[in-house]
Amino acid sequence: MSSTVAGRTILASTIAKCYNQEIEEKVKEIIQRRENHAAPLLVGFLANDDPAAESYAKWTEKTCKSMGFNYELRRIANKDFLEESIIEANRDDAVDGIMVYFPVFGNAQDQYLQQVVSMEKDVEGLNHVYYQNMYHNIRYLDENKTLKSILPCTPLALVKILEFLKVYNVLLPEGNRLYGKKVAVINRSEIVGRPLAALLANDGATVYSVDIDNIQKFTRGEGLKFSKHQVQDLGDNEPVLLEKVCKDADVIITGVPSPNYKFPTEYIKEGAVVINFSFHKNLNDDVKEKASLYVPSTGKVTICMLLRNMLRLVENREKLKQQIL
Amino acid sequence: MSSTVAGRTILASTIAKCYNQEIEEKVKEIIQRRENHAAPLLVGFLANDDPAAESYAKWTEKTCKSMGFNYELRRIANKDFLEESIIEANRDDAVDGIMVYFPVFGNAQDQYLQQVVSMEKDVEGLNHVYYQNMYHNIRYLDENKTLKSILPCTPLALVKILEFLKVYNVLLPEGNRLYGKKVAVINRSEIVGRPLAALLANDGATVYSVDIDNIQKFTRGEGLKFSKHQVQDLGDNEPVLLEKVCKDADVIITGVPSPNYKFPTEYIKEGAVVINFSFHKNLNDDVKEKASLYVPSTGKVTICMLLRNMLRLVENREKLKQQIL
Repeated sequence: MSSTVAGRTILASTIAKCYNQEIEEKVKEIIQRRENHAAPLLVGFLANDDPAAESYAKWTEKTCKSMGFNYELRRIANKDFLEESIIEANRDDAVDGIMVYFPVFGNAQDQYLQQVVSMEKDVEGLNHVYYQNMYHNIRYLDENKTLKSILPCTPLALVKILEFLKVYNVLLPEGNRLYGKKVAVINRSEIVGRPLAALLANDGATVYSVDIDNIQKFTRGEGLKFSKHQVQDLGDNEPVLLEKVCKDADVIITGVPSPNYKFPTEYIKEGAVVINFSFHKNLNDDVKEKASLYVPSTGKVTICMLLRNMLRLVENREKLKQQIL
Repeated sequence: MSSTVAGRTILASTIAKCYNQEIEEKVKEIIQRRENHAAPLLVGFLANDDPAAESYAKWTEKTCKSMGFNYELRRIANKDFLEESIIEANRDDAVDGIMVYFPVFGNAQDQYLQQVVSMEKDVEGLNHVYYQNMYHNIRYLDENKTLKSILPCTPLALVKILEFLKVYNVLLPEGNRLYGKKVAVINRSEIVGRPLAALLANDGATVYSVDIDNIQKFTRGEGLKFSKHQVQDLGDNEPVLLEKVCKDADVIITGVPSPNYKFPTEYIKEGAVVINFSFHKNLNDDVKEKASLYVPSTGKVTICMLLRNMLRLVENREKLKQQIL
């Protein structure tokens, strides 16, 4: 059986390793630059008992400590005190980065809480300013281009995975390295799917964005007034249309938050690249009979991106302090 | 039959009238102060065909024009162009206020779009900065207390209605005029129910906040580190608990967005004040057999508050310009 399977599995840990050295060196430099020689401190807030969040928290802690960061998990027994705890951490100069393990309330109150995290410490890149910059392809916070805008860490991780897998072609100019590539993204959440579709379209890809209701096409919006991706409705999410766009896709990225969902293997084009970022296994075991490269999970790369974001935030704060002095 | 009914219906239009003169005079003053004598311009964005939104848009236009404002409805055929249209209006110095008729996408993308509206033109008071100030009882944007923070207009309208109905007792000091009052709010959306519960708790009330899942109690959080309301879970939203808290309530405020929902009249305490802010009629016809005062809809007061917010925004912008000069 296995001799007929051409596909190769690439583990997130393999991809994450590429970033370890760069991150560890930067952490050391920051510690040296600091008067008190303190390691950058990431504070995680956990106010639920979701197993995915619990496991994500554990991995963040492990990765942080192995790379020279400090990490502190603050468990919040009463969700209604979470907001004040975040505000305290915003004000605490000893805290360099803040992340919240969502869902907390599982409704719009979570979006409110996200925005309570100070922009200067938002390692996940979920602040509205960062989001709006990302959707509009704006890379810096200031006109002098000294302060970098932060990208949301899961979409950023998926971009880095596509770079590792050589879906990004480095022979093409930066900003166009996905030119000609077609990507299906099975998720359109505000946290991953929609920003991811925008990022890939901004790099030249045609993206089929699939959510439970309908299928949209994201492309780079060159004719628009703003440097923003363009969105076109293709139709309802019906099997015929879904099969058509998926079979057309060079890359399939799944992120369905359900243990029961399985992406139909027969919709995968021979030799396509398949990536799953859901906590649940969205692909059937026979995925490698079709896929050339298969990445079964992405969490470890996401944590790397989170730590890279944290380094950027620390550097932004250092630059801001210098500008004030 | 009608002789046994003690309750009185108070129409939103009656309450709205109290604010007409104040608003009209301020508009005239602004027009006089302006070099080009232009009336303040409110731009409304409509990107759906929801009948409630359509009717709200019509009423905003009518009220605006009758009070001396300019109003422009911008219909957006393709939802995906809404963001750029909002950004254009943000940048256009001729636009004083912006509002979006939600829902647009009906998911988290709507919260993203809300935050795209510039804080300086957000007549609905939905910007995160205004929300966080409201939840924390902070009334000004600056330390010198010259720039007023904006309150979300529907919760603000409900506060003004409770003032009109004398539920607020002016013999008590400001900030404590609901002391001893119990209010049940049947809705806990981020747009109305939760901010309303916080505002009423901050004025001294005990608020039973009811959503589809559970019932919470909001009180003023005097023992907390921040001047913020306190929230306590009372239990699941089961008929026994719901009846208990509603029968304890001096005021019942309903906002269930469904044509089929009816609040059980038998849960209303004899002589209670009843207000419905849903577009749908949440109360049965026999409500006045129990309620002393009944306000069947609140939209016209909301529009007044929207225009009052707009005046504040215009004044804030004038003050900011003076500070820069």
